[in-house]
Parts: sequence; C-alpha cells; structure tokens
Amino acid sequence: MSLRILGIDPGLNITGYGVLEVDAGRLRLCEAGVVRGRSKGSLTRRLVEIHEGVSEVIASLQPSAMAIEELYSHYERPRTAILMGHARGVICLAAAEAGVSVSHYAATQIKRILTGNGRAPKSQMQRAIQRELSLSAAPEPPDVADALAVALCHYYLKDKPTTVGLNR
Amino acid sequence: MSLRILGIDPGLNITGYGVLEVDAGRLRLCEAGVVRGRSKGSLTRRLVEIHEGVSEVIASLQPSAMAIEELYSHYERPRTAILMGHARGVICLAAAEAGVSVSHYAATQIKRILTGNGRAPKSQMQRAIQRELSLSAAPEPPDVADALAVALCHYYLKDKPTTVGLNR
Repeated sequence: MSLRILGIDPGLNITGYGVLEVDAGRLRLCEAGVVRGRSKGSLTRRLVEIHEGVSEVIASLQPSAMAIEELYSHYERPRTAILMGHARGVICLAAAEAGVSVSHYAATQIKRILTGNGRAPKSQMQRAIQRELSLSAAPEPPDVADALAVALCHYYLKDKPTTVGLNR
Repeated sequence: MSLRILGIDPGLNITGYGVLEVDAGRLRLCEAGVVRGRSKGSLTRRLVEIHEGVSEVIASLQPSAMAIEELYSHYERPRTAILMGHARGVICLAAAEAGVSVSHYAATQIKRILTGNGRAPKSQMQRAIQRELSLSAAPEPPDVADALAVALCHYYLKDKPTTVGLNR
C-alpha cells in the first residue's frame, strides 16, 4: 500500500503544496503546486480560499499525513508571523477535518535533514530536493520547493516527528 | 427587525463571546459565554474545537456581524500573538462560512470608545460595559468582558469600521 505525505508552505498570498508518494519503499513526487489567494484586501476571504484550496488538494490526493513548517520561525517579522498564523490555522483545520495527521518541523531541522546544514541557502536546498526526488529541474516557485522540503523532512523523520506543545 | 452583533475574544484555551441585540434602537445583552479548548497539547485539535464552538454559537444566535480585536495588539509577546493568529484564523473562517461579516478593532480603539481613554485599565472597562448593558454585576470572566467590549465598539462604530488591510 502506498503512503502519501502532503507538505505545505503556508502563506496568505500563495500556499505551496507538494505530495510525495512512498510505495514499496520508493519515494516519488506525486503532485505539487500552489493555492493562490485571489481576494485582495480581505483577510477573511483569503482564509476561506486557503481553506477551500487545501481541502480540495487533500480530497483529490488523499494524503495520510501533512507536514508543515513549525510555528516560531519568523520572530524577526512578527506581523508576517501573525498573519501566517491565521493561514496555518485554517490549513491545520482542513487537515483535521479530513482526518489527516499534522506534524510540525522547524526550518533549521528541515534544512539540516536535507543538506546537513541547518542554515543552508535556498540554492543548496533546491539541489537537495531535486536530487532526492530525481527531478529534471529545480522545483519552482519557492513555495513549492519549501512544501516539498517539509514533506521530505517528514519522510525522513516520520518515526520521530517533533511534537509542538502548547505549554511553554 | 433586530440586529445581532457577535463580539469575540479569541484564545486557544478560552474564547470569549458575547452577542448584543439592537432592537428598535435599544441595545441589550442577548447571550455571552466561553468556548473552551478541551484537548491538551494538540494545537490542531484545539483549532477544531474552537471552529466548532464558534460555528455553534453563530448557528444558535444568528448574528449578522462579528467584531474581533485587531491583529497586531500583542507584538510584545510574539509567540502568544502567533498562536492567537491560528485561533483568529479559524474563527474568521467560521464567520465567513456562515455569511457573517467580520470587523476588526484595535485594543486602544475599543478602550477609547467605551471609556474615552485608549489605555483604560480593566476595572474601568468592566464598569463601562456594565453601565452600557445595564448589567447587575461586572461581566466575568475577562474573556467575556473583552468580547462584550469589542461588540459594543462595533455597535458604536459600525458605520465606520476599521478596515484591516493586508498591504502594509
């Protein structure tokens, strides 16, 4: 039986997604793309679009697990982080509504797993993803690359996912 | 015809709500309470509970408008603000799914409208809410008081709600 892992790179404008399939121990890219927020100016409408878009990806591709970058990687830009929190909220909700488990990974953890370097630059990450998935070109746009990276991280760490506790 | 305003004070543990009814120009408290997150440790499960709880309040009390504190009032505690962003995300989604408009107000704006002082202490805010709604006691817990405060702010400002743009 095959196992599908959905990686998500959340954003209010563009949410990247990538689905990896593990079949008889072999890993392949099943599908990747972006969910675009079309409503300009209205946070609430965008949240509806993101929730609908991710729900459609889940219904269509039937992943059993979702992996998403950890919460607290963007302290230096709190406004962006708070807005991204809204997007993450409705994305986690979409997964839960479909019975898909959610795992969270820190940005440094994702980079370290894929390159051995927790501070790897984007180009190095892209080469690692391309190599791991035997892609003929680097994954684009960056939102898709980031979604594939967190899905790959989950694939390699799935027996010991980071649990993000709410208690400090 | 009466108009109902739902005020929400979002939180991952306790989300306060209060519904005001405006009927023939008269304002009264319709219902207030809290939605509690029961799942310990799992952010995703709590988001599901908050979304369900707020959806139930909306289905039961049929407000036409929802008012919620603005996004960026908690810069000094970014971790809390990011987590609250998740809760706000699923709350705004619940409103949108029910066709309820969402308005956002800054904490200082809410305090100024109710007391004339944008930095009013909690006790002064409680007295103002008690007076405005002719309550026999101060509203408790604080989550309910904060929810009633933002609903009252919307009542007084509803012809000129603050639009929270996504573009900086």
